[in-house]
Amino acid sequence: MKNIIVGQSGGPTSVINSSLLGVFKTAKDLKVEKIYGMVHGIKGLLEKEVVDLKEKIKTDLDMDLLKRTPSSFLGSCRYKLPEILGNEETYKRIFEILDELNIGAFFYIGGNDSMDTIKKLSDYGNKIHSEIRFMGVPKTIDNDLAITDHTPGYGSAAKYIAATMKEIICDGLVYDYPVVTIVEIMGRNAGWLTGAAALAKGEDCQGVDMIFLPEIPFDIDLFLRKTGELLKENRSLVIAVSEGIKVKDGRYVCELADHVEYVDSFGHKQLSGTARFLAAQVAKTYNVKTRAIELSSLQRCAAHMTSRIDVTEAFNTGGAAVKAALKENLTGHVITLKRVSEDPYMCITEPADVHFIANIEKKVPLEWISKDGCFVTEELVHYIRPLIQAEIAPLWVDGLPRHLKLK
Amino acid sequence: MKNIIVGQSGGPTSVINSSLLGVFKTAKDLKVEKIYGMVHGIKGLLEKEVVDLKEKIKTDLDMDLLKRTPSSFLGSCRYKLPEILGNEETYKRIFEILDELNIGAFFYIGGNDSMDTIKKLSDYGNKIHSEIRFMGVPKTIDNDLAITDHTPGYGSAAKYIAATMKEIICDGLVYDYPVVTIVEIMGRNAGWLTGAAALAKGEDCQGVDMIFLPEIPFDIDLFLRKTGELLKENRSLVIAVSEGIKVKDGRYVCELADHVEYVDSFGHKQLSGTARFLAAQVAKTYNVKTRAIELSSLQRCAAHMTSRIDVTEAFNTGGAAVKAALKENLTGHVITLKRVSEDPYMCITEPADVHFIANIEKKVPLEWISKDGCFVTEELVHYIRPLIQAEIAPLWVDGLPRHLKLK
Repeated sequence: MKNIIVGQSGGPTSVINSSLLGVFKTAKDLKVEKIYGMVHGIKGLLEKEVVDLKEKIKTDLDMDLLKRTPSSFLGSCRYKLPEILGNEETYKRIFEILDELNIGAFFYIGGNDSMDTIKKLSDYGNKIHSEIRFMGVPKTIDNDLAITDHTPGYGSAAKYIAATMKEIICDGLVYDYPVVTIVEIMGRNAGWLTGAAALAKGEDCQGVDMIFLPEIPFDIDLFLRKTGELLKENRSLVIAVSEGIKVKDGRYVCELADHVEYVDSFGHKQLSGTARFLAAQVAKTYNVKTRAIELSSLQRCAAHMTSRIDVTEAFNTGGAAVKAALKENLTGHVITLKRVSEDPYMCITEPADVHFIANIEKKVPLEWISKDGCFVTEELVHYIRPLIQAEIAPLWVDGLPRHLKLK
Repeated sequence: MKNIIVGQSGGPTSVINSSLLGVFKTAKDLKVEKIYGMVHGIKGLLEKEVVDLKEKIKTDLDMDLLKRTPSSFLGSCRYKLPEILGNEETYKRIFEILDELNIGAFFYIGGNDSMDTIKKLSDYGNKIHSEIRFMGVPKTIDNDLAITDHTPGYGSAAKYIAATMKEIICDGLVYDYPVVTIVEIMGRNAGWLTGAAALAKGEDCQGVDMIFLPEIPFDIDLFLRKTGELLKENRSLVIAVSEGIKVKDGRYVCELADHVEYVDSFGHKQLSGTARFLAAQVAKTYNVKTRAIELSSLQRCAAHMTSRIDVTEAFNTGGAAVKAALKENLTGHVITLKRVSEDPYMCITEPADVHFIANIEKKVPLEWISKDGCFVTEELVHYIRPLIQAEIAPLWVDGLPRHLKLK
C-alpha cells in the first residue's frame, strides 16, 4: 500500500485537528506505512515541507490532546492554485513531489477555497491518468459549503457564540440604567454564525434582542427605530450583527466608519468595526451607554469549549475520506454530512463530487430570516440546536487547557 | 436573631455569586430567619427594592447554579454614598429602611468603591450607636484592593485570560506569513490582569511576546523597535497590553486615536481602542498583517471557565463575613485573604479595618515588571499561578451552561 499525505488549509476551526486525527487514525488502522503531513498546506508541500505524522502523534494521550488543540496543528495557508491551463508547471511539480513520497492518496481539510484545490488537483490527476486519489475533508466555522448539511467546525463555533451571548446578556443586565451591547460575529456573506446567537434564549435567559444577517440589506433607520422601541421596554439590549452586513448601495456597514481595510490573496476584505460604528450611532441617537464587542478570532479558536457532536463528526469525515480513497478508490470527492434523522438527530457521511461544492457559497435561506429582517426563525434554531450538543472537557494541566504542539 | 441583608456592587466578576452564596448559606446555617438581597445594591435599597433570598435560592441545585452564574445575581449599581457631613438625610433614610426590615447585619460584595460604602455606613452607624453590623466582602477582577493577598474574582479572570491567550497564540501561528496580534486587557490603573497573560507560556506554548502594564509610562518608540526586533525571529507575535497604558505626558494611548469617551458617575473613563491604535502603528511601520483583539467584558463574565480556587475563596470570604458579624460582632471590616503558605498554596480569611482598604488602589509592584518595561518577572507568575488552579465545570443543559435567573 502506498503512503498518504494530509494538509490543512484556510482559517482554522476548533475541531480541524479532530479531522486530522480522523485521517491519521483511520489510515494507521488500515496499516498505511507513512502518513505525511504538509506543513502550511499545499504551499508547504511545494517546498517539500512535510512531516512524518507517526513521529508527531505517538501516544493515545497525544491523540486526545490533538482533539483539544485549537488552530491547525500542521499550520495553514491561503494559497490558491492557478488554473491548470497555462500553469501546468505547478501541477507537474506537485505530482513529482507526491511521487517522490510514494503518495497514493492526498487529503485536504478546508473550506471553499481548499475544495478548489482538490478540484484542480483531481482534474489534473485525471488528465494525466494519475492513480493518486484526492479527497476533500470539509471544515469551516462559516458553514457556507454546498451540499453538506453543515460543516465540521460550525457546531463548536455556534456553541461558543451561544454560550458567550448568554454570559454577555447576564452581564448587560447588571446595572439599573440602559445599556445597548452590540456584538459583532464572523461571517462575511453567510449569517450562519450570527444566527447562532438565537440559541442563547432559554428558560434561564431572555436571549438576544435583534439579529442581523448579511443575507439581506441592512437598514440603519430600521435598526435605530427598533432599538428605540426596544429601549422603552428593556433595560439592557444585546444585539448580534454579522461583520458582513451591507447597506442597500452595497457598502459594508463597517466601511461607513473610518477604518483600515485589508485584502488577502483571495481578495477578501478584512471586516471589523461594524459593532463599533452601530454602537456610536445608538449612543448618539438615544444618549445611552453602549458597548461594542467583537468576538474576533476567539470564535474559531476557543478549543476549550467545543461541541462533542462536532468533534465526532469532524473525526468521522476525516476517517470517511480515508476509507473512500483507500477502499473505494474515489478521487475528486468531498465527504459531506447528511442529516438522516431529525429527532433523534443523526448524521451520516457521504462522498460528493467536488465540482458541486468548490467555490459555491451556501447562505442562510431567506425564509429563515424573520420578515422585518431583525431576527431569525425557529427553523434556523431547530437546525443548529443538535450541532452544539454535548461537551468534550479540556485536559487541564496546571490550571490551563493543555494542547499538542508540532515540534 | 435579627435578619441580614446582602448586596452586590460595582462591576461583576464570574465568582461574585459564589460570595453571595457564601453569605446566604452561612447565614442560613446559622438560622438567620430572613436573608434579604438588595436589588441593584444600595441604590435599590434606597427604593426598598429587596428580595427574600430564601424564596429565590430554594434547592441545592439552585445553589450549584448560582455558583456558575455570571454577572451579579442581584444586580449591581455604581452609586457612591455622599460624605456623611451635610448629607445625614441619606443615611437616616438607609437606617430607617434597615430598621424596618429588622436588619442586624449588612453585607456588601464589591471593590474599592463599594468598600467606601461600608466605611461610610459603619462610620455613621458608630456615630449614632447603631447595633447594625456592616461588613465588606471583596470582589474585583482588577485585584487592586489593599491588604488582601488578592481579590476573589481575579483568579478566574486570570485563568480566562491565560487560557484565551494560549488559544490566540495557537491561532496566530497558523499561517506562514507574519502576523502581529495585540490583545487589549482590562485594568485601568493596575496591571494584574494584563500580567496574567504571562501564564500562557508552558511546555506546549511559547507564550506571549511582550506585556505592557499601566504601572509605567508606555514608550511607543520602544514598543515599535522591540516589535521590529521580534519580527526578525518570529512569524507570529502576540502582545498583551493593558487598556490603561499611558504615554509620558499622561494621555492614555487610546486617546491618541479618535474614539468616544465615557465618564461614569465615579469619574472613570471608558477606555478602549488601545490595541487597535497600536496594531495600526505596527501595520504602518512594518507592513505586516495585524490584528487587534479586545477581551472586553468576557473577562469578567466567562463563568464557563472559572478557577475552583477562586470560587472556593469567594464563597469563604462571604461565609467569613457572616461569621465575623454575627459571631464576633465585628463592624466596619472587610474579609481579606492572607496567603499563609506558598508551597503548597494556602490562604485563610482575615477581617481588616475597612479604613485601611477603601479607596486605596494596589498596583503591581514595579520590581515585578521587567527592566525594559516590556514584560513581567517570574515573581508575578509565581504569585498568580496558584490562583488559577482547578476547575468547576458548568452544568450543561441542551448544549449550553445553565444559569440561575432572578425572577
